[in-house]
Amino acid sequence: MPVPVVYQSLKVDSQTRARLGQVHTPHGSFDTPAFMPVGTQGTIKGLLPDHVRATGSQCILANTYHLMLRPGPQTVAELGDLHRFMAWDGPILTDSGGFQVFSLADINKITDEGVIFKSHIDGAMIELTPQQSMFVQNKLGADIIMMFDECPPGDAPPAYQQQAVVRTLHWARQCVKAHARADEQGLFGIVQGGGDLDLRAKCAAELIDLDLPGYALGGLAVGEGFGTMLQVLDHTTVLLPAEKPRYLMGVGFPRDIVAAVASGIDMFDCVLPTRNGRNAYAFTNTGPMRLRNSLFTRDDQPIEAACDCYACRHFSRGAIRHYFFAGEMLGPILVSLHNIRFYQRLMADIRQSIASGRFDQFRKNDPRAHFGPSEQADQV
Amino acid sequence: MPVPVVYQSLKVDSQTRARLGQVHTPHGSFDTPAFMPVGTQGTIKGLLPDHVRATGSQCILANTYHLMLRPGPQTVAELGDLHRFMAWDGPILTDSGGFQVFSLADINKITDEGVIFKSHIDGAMIELTPQQSMFVQNKLGADIIMMFDECPPGDAPPAYQQQAVVRTLHWARQCVKAHARADEQGLFGIVQGGGDLDLRAKCAAELIDLDLPGYALGGLAVGEGFGTMLQVLDHTTVLLPAEKPRYLMGVGFPRDIVAAVASGIDMFDCVLPTRNGRNAYAFTNTGPMRLRNSLFTRDDQPIEAACDCYACRHFSRGAIRHYFFAGEMLGPILVSLHNIRFYQRLMADIRQSIASGRFDQFRKNDPRAHFGPSEQADQV
Repeated sequence: MPVPVVYQSLKVDSQTRARLGQVHTPHGSFDTPAFMPVGTQGTIKGLLPDHVRATGSQCILANTYHLMLRPGPQTVAELGDLHRFMAWDGPILTDSGGFQVFSLADINKITDEGVIFKSHIDGAMIELTPQQSMFVQNKLGADIIMMFDECPPGDAPPAYQQQAVVRTLHWARQCVKAHARADEQGLFGIVQGGGDLDLRAKCAAELIDLDLPGYALGGLAVGEGFGTMLQVLDHTTVLLPAEKPRYLMGVGFPRDIVAAVASGIDMFDCVLPTRNGRNAYAFTNTGPMRLRNSLFTRDDQPIEAACDCYACRHFSRGAIRHYFFAGEMLGPILVSLHNIRFYQRLMADIRQSIASGRFDQFRKNDPRAHFGPSEQADQV
Repeated sequence: MPVPVVYQSLKVDSQTRARLGQVHTPHGSFDTPAFMPVGTQGTIKGLLPDHVRATGSQCILANTYHLMLRPGPQTVAELGDLHRFMAWDGPILTDSGGFQVFSLADINKITDEGVIFKSHIDGAMIELTPQQSMFVQNKLGADIIMMFDECPPGDAPPAYQQQAVVRTLHWARQCVKAHARADEQGLFGIVQGGGDLDLRAKCAAELIDLDLPGYALGGLAVGEGFGTMLQVLDHTTVLLPAEKPRYLMGVGFPRDIVAAVASGIDMFDCVLPTRNGRNAYAFTNTGPMRLRNSLFTRDDQPIEAACDCYACRHFSRGAIRHYFFAGEMLGPILVSLHNIRFYQRLMADIRQSIASGRFDQFRKNDPRAHFGPSEQADQV
């Protein structure tokens, strides 16, 4: 059986574990380290696919949890699968629904079979199991799909973390069995284990035995702190097979991405550029810019003079500020566009620095490598 | 002094009074009959300028009333005038604020000097006079600006209509005097008079004496009914100078536009394509399509197979319906784009039919010439 998702290594950094490569999928390839914007409900909020492509994004993400509830996997399938539905003919990744069920849903019951929860849309009781997650993701038809995993909160006690890993491994085997399109969609495993390094190692080892086409780290950036995240990354990433892509789920600030690349991570997704964009928070090379600030009322400059995004090429800070205060969609649209372009410029610069042997310098000296959350409001 | 706005006639239809032409402005020309999408607060809601241009729109409109209150004329001027502010380097028209003050505002007092009203944003008392309207429109810097007029409701009694015309003519002279950039911005007069044909004629005659670079008809599509509108159009449009552009303000459904073109109107603006687009109402050659309808849940077709807009080239009715139910901006964005493109295809077909001598046929046989409001919900 052909493997639908293949990692091609181009270079490994000599001073860090950073890797330059490409991931090949049935809908084309993307350069790694890669950032994937999040299209929760089948759209990167407010943006047409052409604009998303113009930011340099090559692979995008959609959420199984949301699309399962609305419009439903059968509807997406009848509308021609997620690529046609979202008008995105490049690579797409769907998560398994696990993270959303455990973080958003009103959970009724968790058993070894799966989770029963209340739909946030109509209150209906819904069951999500490894089999159901695979069924939905097979219908959606993304190039990369994720195993259904148990995601404990960052502060979960050790006993829960251990139990969650046992269940995650059990579910991983269920997912492998239930995956009906293994020749067309690459199923990635998800390493859980919280801050417990031994547990992470055990989880990684058992998942590697399943010989999946890619591996992710889950349960990070959930409040465990930057130090713990780095520790888990440094310890766990190296355990993952070098010939397969590695994905750090739901991360993060530029600082987190640069640090994770140094530990050998290839793929990232995060709602920060779009969610913060909708709140008038712009990412810039010199830190956050909050465009509602009255400082910008009559500021004719673009968000960043050196940025080549649509917003920076056409609109002043003053005009963008006005659109936010006037409640116009254009404000969220422009800052989301800018922020995704900021992330893609960051990724391109990271790739360039690895290619030219300057990544270690980049991670030490580039201001973006130190751009983390500055206060509560900036949390993921 | 150079005249900033010039009408160039290309052809007059032999069977109707329809005219084919071009309007030349300091920021370029546009083909007439023309439809101008409305950017109330300095943005066509949800659309980037590139998309607006891709619909075939050549001239756009912005609202003095809204921009005066927020962000204020001085702010727009310091941000480089409305062209730079909105990132639209083509022709722009601003209305005078008259219609909005009389239809939206909490009016405190109307005198021969102007109107005092309460700001809908912060409750502040604001005065709008002919002088202030000119000051604001001079600051905004549109290519075509409108005189400040009194706009009585459609069912206003004859005495109020007469008084409003007297005041409108008085304000017209005040506007001419106060207009500080007459060499850069063309000031259009607005013919009022409700359904009273003599009053319309008197208003037109006195405005024509002012030798303005263009003339508009106001106070139509305000509930007077299609028959009355046609009567006023047929009677009044012919009184306006042939060598100047004629603008029917705030109109309308495709049916209204085709009929008004037949009477010799050159320019139109209306919020219908965008406002209805935000409500999932799509204009099509065969009538309205309400995309929230469950009929479309698994409909893989585009809104209109023959349409070349971005929405129709990329998205299914089923996906668009989903975006509306999911509260995603993409729904309003896609249907607004489609609807503006629908209007611009209509205008292009009207122009083509005049050019080829088939306009009379077009207005009798094309289904769009009979596409009016079908029920209360479709009113302007």
